[in-house]
Amino acid sequence: MDLSSKIRVIEGFPIDGISFKDITTILKDKEAFSYTIDTLAGLVGEGIDYIASPEARGFIFGTALADRLGAGFIPIRKRGKLPAETIKHDYELEYGTDTLEVHADAFENGGKVAVVDDLLATGGTLNTCCKLVEKAGGTVERIVVLIELTSMNGREKLEGYDIRSVLTYDI
Amino acid sequence: MDLSSKIRVIEGFPIDGISFKDITTILKDKEAFSYTIDTLAGLVGEGIDYIASPEARGFIFGTALADRLGAGFIPIRKRGKLPAETIKHDYELEYGTDTLEVHADAFENGGKVAVVDDLLATGGTLNTCCKLVEKAGGTVERIVVLIELTSMNGREKLEGYDIRSVLTYDI
Repeated sequence: MDLSSKIRVIEGFPIDGISFKDITTILKDKEAFSYTIDTLAGLVGEGIDYIASPEARGFIFGTALADRLGAGFIPIRKRGKLPAETIKHDYELEYGTDTLEVHADAFENGGKVAVVDDLLATGGTLNTCCKLVEKAGGTVERIVVLIELTSMNGREKLEGYDIRSVLTYDI
Repeated sequence: MDLSSKIRVIEGFPIDGISFKDITTILKDKEAFSYTIDTLAGLVGEGIDYIASPEARGFIFGTALADRLGAGFIPIRKRGKLPAETIKHDYELEYGTDTLEVHADAFENGGKVAVVDDLLATGGTLNTCCKLVEKAGGTVERIVVLIELTSMNGREKLEGYDIRSVLTYDI
Protein backbone atom coordinates (compact mmCIF):
# COMPACT_ATOMS: atom_id res chain seq x y z
CA MET A 1 0.00 0.00 0.00
CA ASP A 2 1.24 3.51 -0.84
CA LEU A 3 0.76 5.08 2.58
CA SER A 4 1.98 8.50 1.44
CA SER A 5 -1.11 8.73 -0.78
CA LYS A 6 -3.25 8.29 2.34
CA ILE A 7 -1.78 11.33 4.10
CA ARG A 8 -3.55 14.64 3.60
CA VAL A 9 -1.20 17.59 3.22
CA ILE A 10 -2.61 20.88 4.54
CA GLU A 11 -0.72 24.03 3.64
CA GLY A 12 -0.39 26.80 6.23
CA PHE A 13 -1.28 24.80 9.35
CA PRO A 14 -0.70 25.58 12.16
CA ILE A 15 1.09 28.67 10.77
CA ASP A 16 1.97 30.08 7.37
CA GLY A 17 4.80 28.28 5.64
CA ILE A 18 4.16 24.89 7.21
CA SER A 19 3.05 22.02 4.98
CA PHE A 20 1.24 19.93 7.60
CA LYS A 21 1.05 16.15 7.22
CA ASP A 22 -2.42 15.16 8.42
CA ILE A 23 -2.46 11.53 9.57
CA THR A 24 -6.17 11.45 10.45
CA THR A 25 -6.91 10.33 6.89
CA ILE A 26 -4.87 7.20 7.58
CA LEU A 27 -6.56 6.59 10.93
CA LYS A 28 -10.09 6.68 9.58
CA ASP A 29 -9.28 4.26 6.73
CA LYS A 30 -9.34 0.87 8.46
CA GLU A 31 -7.17 -0.86 5.85
CA ALA A 32 -4.59 1.96 5.89
CA PHE A 33 -4.55 2.09 9.68
CA SER A 34 -4.06 -1.66 10.03
CA TYR A 35 -1.33 -1.60 7.38
CA THR A 36 0.40 1.26 9.19
CA ILE A 37 0.47 -0.67 12.46
CA ASP A 38 1.75 -3.76 10.57
CA THR A 39 4.57 -1.69 9.12
CA LEU A 40 5.49 0.05 12.36
CA ALA A 41 5.44 -3.31 14.20
CA GLY A 42 7.93 -4.66 11.68
CA LEU A 43 10.25 -1.71 12.33
CA VAL A 44 9.98 -2.09 16.12
CA GLY A 45 10.81 -5.79 15.81
CA GLU A 46 10.89 -8.54 18.41
CA GLY A 47 12.14 -8.51 21.98
CA ILE A 48 10.81 -5.11 23.06
CA ASP A 49 9.42 -4.89 26.60
CA TYR A 50 7.86 -1.43 26.42
CA ILE A 51 6.61 1.11 23.92
CA ALA A 52 7.00 4.69 25.24
CA SER A 53 5.25 7.56 23.45
CA PRO A 54 4.58 11.28 24.04
CA GLU A 55 1.06 12.67 24.17
CA ALA A 56 -1.13 13.10 22.27
CA ARG A 57 -0.51 11.81 18.73
CA GLY A 58 2.22 9.45 19.90
CA PHE A 59 -0.41 7.59 21.93
CA ILE A 60 -2.27 6.77 18.70
CA PHE A 61 0.42 4.55 17.28
CA GLY A 62 2.19 3.62 20.51
CA THR A 63 -0.69 1.86 22.22
CA ALA A 64 -1.83 -0.08 19.16
CA LEU A 65 1.77 -1.22 18.73
CA ALA A 66 2.12 -2.24 22.38
CA ASP A 67 -1.04 -4.32 22.03
CA ARG A 68 0.15 -5.93 18.79
CA LEU A 69 3.58 -6.77 20.17
CA GLY A 70 2.51 -7.85 23.66
CA ALA A 71 4.53 -5.05 25.23
CA GLY A 72 3.70 -2.64 28.03
CA PHE A 73 2.92 1.00 27.24
CA ILE A 74 4.54 3.95 29.01
CA PRO A 75 2.90 7.37 28.44
CA ILE A 76 5.15 10.44 28.37
CA ARG A 77 3.05 13.47 29.26
CA LYS A 78 3.06 17.22 29.56
CA ARG A 79 3.64 18.80 32.95
CA GLY A 80 1.11 17.99 35.66
CA LYS A 81 -0.78 15.19 33.93
CA LEU A 82 0.82 12.13 35.57
CA PRO A 83 -0.48 11.53 39.10
CA ALA A 84 2.42 9.72 40.82
CA GLU A 85 6.07 10.74 41.32
CA THR A 86 7.63 11.81 38.02
CA ILE A 87 10.95 12.51 36.37
CA LYS A 88 10.95 15.76 34.35
CA HIS A 89 12.98 16.94 31.39
CA ASP A 90 12.85 20.43 29.87
CA TYR A 91 13.36 21.03 26.17
CA GLU A 92 13.61 24.09 24.01
CA LEU A 93 10.92 25.26 21.66
CA GLU A 94 11.30 27.99 19.07
CA TYR A 95 10.21 30.43 21.79
CA GLY A 96 10.71 29.34 25.39
CA THR A 97 10.83 25.85 26.87
CA ASP A 98 8.43 23.03 27.58
CA THR A 99 8.52 20.06 29.94
CA LEU A 100 7.71 16.39 29.53
CA GLU A 101 7.39 13.88 32.36
CA VAL A 102 7.40 10.13 32.91
CA HIS A 103 6.49 8.22 36.05
CA ALA A 104 9.62 7.58 38.11
CA ASP A 105 8.68 3.90 38.51
CA ALA A 106 7.84 3.36 34.82
CA PHE A 107 10.78 1.00 34.28
CA GLU A 108 11.44 -0.10 37.84
CA ASN A 109 13.00 -3.37 36.63
CA GLY A 110 14.65 -1.91 33.53
CA GLY A 111 13.57 -3.12 30.10
CA LYS A 112 14.10 -2.73 26.38
CA VAL A 113 12.15 0.24 25.05
CA ALA A 114 11.05 1.44 21.63
CA VAL A 115 10.20 5.16 21.61
CA VAL A 116 7.36 5.70 19.12
CA ASP A 117 5.85 8.91 17.74
CA ASP A 118 4.00 9.98 14.63
CA LEU A 119 6.61 12.51 13.51
CA LEU A 120 10.36 13.17 13.60
CA ALA A 121 10.99 16.84 12.82
CA THR A 122 13.64 18.73 14.86
CA GLY A 123 14.04 15.77 17.21
CA GLY A 124 13.41 17.87 20.33
CA THR A 125 10.44 15.89 21.59
CA LEU A 126 11.95 12.50 20.77
CA ASN A 127 15.27 13.39 22.37
CA THR A 128 13.43 14.41 25.53
CA CYS A 129 11.52 11.12 25.48
CA CYS A 130 14.76 9.14 25.19
CA LYS A 131 16.35 11.04 28.07
CA LEU A 132 13.29 10.41 30.25
CA VAL A 133 13.26 6.68 29.44
CA GLU A 134 16.95 6.44 30.36
CA LYS A 135 16.61 8.48 33.56
CA ALA A 136 13.75 6.19 34.61
CA GLY A 137 15.87 3.05 34.08
CA GLY A 138 14.85 1.87 30.62
CA THR A 139 17.14 1.14 27.65
CA VAL A 140 16.23 2.83 24.36
CA GLU A 141 16.63 0.11 21.74
CA ARG A 142 15.29 2.21 18.91
CA ILE A 143 13.12 5.13 17.83
CA VAL A 144 10.29 4.40 15.38
CA VAL A 145 8.19 7.09 13.65
CA LEU A 146 5.64 7.12 10.88
CA ILE A 147 6.90 10.32 9.22
CA GLU A 148 10.41 11.82 9.11
CA LEU A 149 10.95 15.38 7.84
CA THR A 150 14.55 14.92 6.74
CA SER A 151 15.24 18.60 6.06
CA MET A 152 14.79 19.39 9.76
CA ASN A 153 17.84 17.29 10.70
CA GLY A 154 16.30 15.54 13.66
CA ARG A 155 18.79 12.70 13.31
CA GLU A 156 21.62 15.04 14.31
CA LYS A 157 19.99 15.69 17.68
CA LEU A 158 19.39 11.96 18.11
CA GLU A 159 22.89 10.80 17.21
CA GLY A 160 23.67 7.32 18.50
CA TYR A 161 20.10 6.10 18.42
CA ASP A 162 18.73 3.56 15.94
CA ILE A 163 16.02 5.55 14.12
CA ARG A 164 13.51 3.91 11.80
CA SER A 165 10.84 5.78 9.82
CA VAL A 166 8.13 4.60 7.45
CA LEU A 167 7.80 7.72 5.28
CA THR A 168 10.29 10.51 4.62
CA TYR A 169 9.64 14.01 3.29
CA ASP A 170 12.48 16.25 2.12
CA ILE A 171 10.70 19.53 2.83
CA MET B 1 -7.80 -11.15 36.01
CA ASP B 2 -8.85 -8.71 38.74
CA LEU B 3 -8.19 -5.49 36.86
CA SER B 4 -9.20 -3.28 39.77
CA SER B 5 -6.15 -4.57 41.66
CA LYS B 6 -3.97 -3.26 38.81
CA ILE B 7 -5.22 0.32 39.15
CA ARG B 8 -3.25 2.62 41.43
CA VAL B 9 -5.39 4.96 43.49
CA ILE B 10 -3.75 8.30 44.28
CA GLU B 11 -5.44 10.47 46.89
CA GLY B 12 -5.52 14.24 46.38
CA PHE B 13 -4.69 14.35 42.64
CA PRO B 14 -5.16 16.66 40.83
CA ILE B 15 -6.77 18.48 43.79
CA ASP B 16 -7.67 17.72 47.40
CA GLY B 17 -10.64 15.43 47.83
CA ILE B 18 -10.18 13.53 44.56
CA SER B 19 -9.30 9.84 44.71
CA PHE B 20 -7.59 9.53 41.32
CA LYS B 21 -7.66 6.22 39.44
CA ASP B 22 -4.23 5.88 37.84
CA ILE B 23 -4.42 3.59 34.80
CA THR B 24 -0.70 3.79 33.95
CA THR B 25 -0.11 0.78 36.21
CA ILE B 26 -2.34 -1.25 33.87
CA LEU B 27 -0.62 0.08 30.76
CA LYS B 28 2.88 -0.85 31.84
CA ASP B 29 1.86 -4.41 32.79
CA LYS B 30 1.73 -6.17 29.41
CA GLU B 31 -0.61 -8.93 30.59
CA ALA B 32 -2.98 -6.47 32.24
CA PHE B 33 -2.93 -4.16 29.21
CA SER B 34 -3.67 -6.99 26.78
CA TYR B 35 -6.43 -8.30 29.03
CA THR B 36 -7.94 -4.80 29.25
CA ILE B 37 -8.07 -4.49 25.45
CA ASP B 38 -9.59 -8.00 25.25
CA THR B 39 -12.29 -6.97 27.69
CA LEU B 40 -13.04 -3.63 26.06
CA ALA B 41 -13.17 -5.31 22.62
CA GLY B 42 -15.80 -7.71 23.95
CA LEU B 43 -17.90 -4.77 25.18
CA VAL B 44 -17.57 -2.91 21.87
CA GLY B 45 -18.66 -6.05 19.98
CA GLU B 46 -18.87 -6.79 16.27
CA GLY B 47 -20.04 -4.61 13.40
CA ILE B 48 -18.48 -1.32 14.47
CA ASP B 49 -17.00 0.80 11.67
CA TYR B 50 -15.21 3.42 13.78
CA ILE B 51 -13.85 3.97 17.25
CA ALA B 52 -13.97 7.66 18.25
CA SER B 53 -12.08 8.86 21.33
CA PRO B 54 -11.15 12.17 22.98
CA GLU B 55 -7.56 13.17 23.58
CA ALA B 56 -5.38 12.28 25.36
CA ARG B 57 -6.17 9.24 27.52
CA GLY B 58 -9.01 8.16 25.24
CA PHE B 59 -6.46 7.64 22.47
CA ILE B 60 -4.72 4.99 24.60
CA PHE B 61 -7.60 2.52 24.54
CA GLY B 62 -9.35 3.75 21.40
CA THR B 63 -6.55 3.12 18.92
CA ALA B 64 -5.60 -0.29 20.29
CA LEU B 65 -9.29 -1.24 20.05
CA ALA B 66 -9.61 0.05 16.49
CA ASP B 67 -6.61 -2.06 15.51
CA ARG B 68 -7.96 -5.15 17.26
CA LEU B 69 -11.43 -4.81 15.72
CA GLY B 70 -10.35 -3.77 12.21
CA ALA B 71 -12.15 -0.44 12.59
CA GLY B 72 -11.11 3.09 11.67
CA PHE B 73 -10.10 5.54 14.40
CA ILE B 74 -11.49 9.08 14.70
CA PRO B 75 -9.64 11.42 17.09
CA ILE B 76 -11.69 14.04 18.96
CA ARG B 77 -9.39 16.86 19.94
CA LYS B 78 -9.13 20.09 21.85
CA ARG B 79 -9.54 23.37 20.00
CA GLY B 80 -7.01 24.12 17.27
CA LYS B 81 -5.34 20.71 17.04
CA LEU B 82 -7.09 19.27 13.97
CA PRO B 83 -5.77 20.73 10.71
CA ALA B 84 -8.75 20.45 8.33
CA GLU B 85 -12.30 21.81 8.59
CA THR B 86 -13.88 20.86 11.92
CA ILE B 87 -17.18 20.72 13.75
CA LYS B 88 -17.02 22.19 17.26
CA HIS B 89 -19.04 21.58 20.41
CA ASP B 90 -18.70 23.54 23.66
CA TYR B 91 -19.24 21.93 27.03
CA GLU B 92 -19.35 23.21 30.56
CA LEU B 93 -16.62 22.65 33.10
CA GLU B 94 -16.88 23.39 36.81
CA TYR B 95 -15.58 26.87 35.97
CA GLY B 96 -16.11 28.09 32.42
CA THR B 97 -16.39 26.11 29.20
CA ASP B 98 -14.17 24.04 26.94
CA THR B 99 -14.41 22.99 23.30
CA LEU B 100 -13.83 19.71 21.50
CA GLU B 101 -13.60 19.28 17.74
CA VAL B 102 -13.85 16.55 15.13
CA HIS B 103 -13.02 16.73 11.45
CA ALA B 104 -16.14 17.61 9.45
CA ASP B 105 -15.42 14.77 7.00
CA ALA B 106 -14.71 12.15 9.68
CA PHE B 107 -17.80 10.10 8.82
CA GLU B 108 -18.45 11.32 5.30
CA ASN B 109 -20.27 8.06 4.41
CA GLY B 110 -21.87 7.58 7.83
CA GLY B 111 -20.94 4.53 9.89
CA LYS B 112 -21.52 2.75 13.19
CA VAL B 113 -19.40 4.27 15.94
CA ALA B 114 -18.30 3.21 19.41
CA VAL B 115 -17.21 6.16 21.56
CA VAL B 116 -14.38 5.00 23.85
CA ASP B 117 -12.70 6.72 26.78
CA ASP B 118 -10.86 5.67 29.92
CA LEU B 119 -13.34 7.25 32.34
CA LEU B 120 -17.02 8.11 32.72
CA ALA B 121 -17.43 10.68 35.50
CA THR B 122 -19.91 13.56 34.97
CA GLY B 123 -20.43 12.53 31.34
CA GLY B 124 -19.62 15.99 30.00
CA THR B 125 -16.75 14.91 27.77
CA LEU B 126 -18.50 11.77 26.51
CA ASN B 127 -21.73 13.64 25.79
CA THR B 128 -19.75 16.17 23.76
CA CYS B 129 -18.06 13.34 21.86
CA CYS B 130 -21.42 11.76 21.02
CA LYS B 131 -22.83 15.07 19.79
CA LEU B 132 -19.78 15.61 17.59
CA VAL B 133 -20.01 12.11 16.10
CA GLU B 134 -23.68 12.68 15.28
CA LYS B 135 -23.13 16.17 13.85
CA ALA B 136 -20.43 14.72 11.61
CA GLY B 137 -22.75 12.00 10.27
CA GLY B 138 -21.86 8.96 12.40
CA THR B 139 -24.27 6.83 14.45
CA VAL B 140 -23.31 6.24 18.09
CA GLU B 141 -23.95 2.55 18.67
CA ARG B 142 -22.54 2.55 22.18
CA ILE B 143 -20.20 4.15 24.70
CA VAL B 144 -17.47 1.98 26.21
CA VAL B 145 -15.25 3.02 29.13
CA LEU B 146 -12.75 1.28 31.36
CA ILE B 147 -13.84 3.03 34.59
CA GLU B 148 -17.24 4.41 35.60
CA LEU B 149 -17.57 6.61 38.71
CA THR B 150 -21.22 5.83 39.42
CA SER B 151 -21.70 8.48 42.11
CA MET B 152 -21.12 11.23 39.53
CA ASN B 153 -24.27 10.26 37.63
CA GLY B 154 -22.77 10.44 34.15
CA ARG B 155 -25.47 8.07 32.86
CA GLU B 156 -28.12 10.75 33.45
CA LYS B 157 -26.38 13.12 31.05
CA LEU B 158 -26.00 10.28 28.53
CA GLU B 159 -29.61 9.04 28.66
CA GLY B 160 -30.60 7.01 25.63
CA TYR B 161 -27.10 5.73 24.91
CA ASP B 162 -25.95 2.14 25.44
CA ILE B 163 -23.16 2.55 28.01
CA ARG B 164 -20.80 -0.30 28.92
CA SER B 165 -18.05 -0.08 31.56
CA VAL B 166 -15.46 -2.57 32.77
CA LEU B 167 -14.98 -1.31 36.33
CA THR B 168 -17.31 0.74 38.53
CA TYR B 169 -16.45 2.79 41.62
CA ASP B 170 -19.17 4.11 43.91
CA ILE B 171 -17.15 7.08 45.19
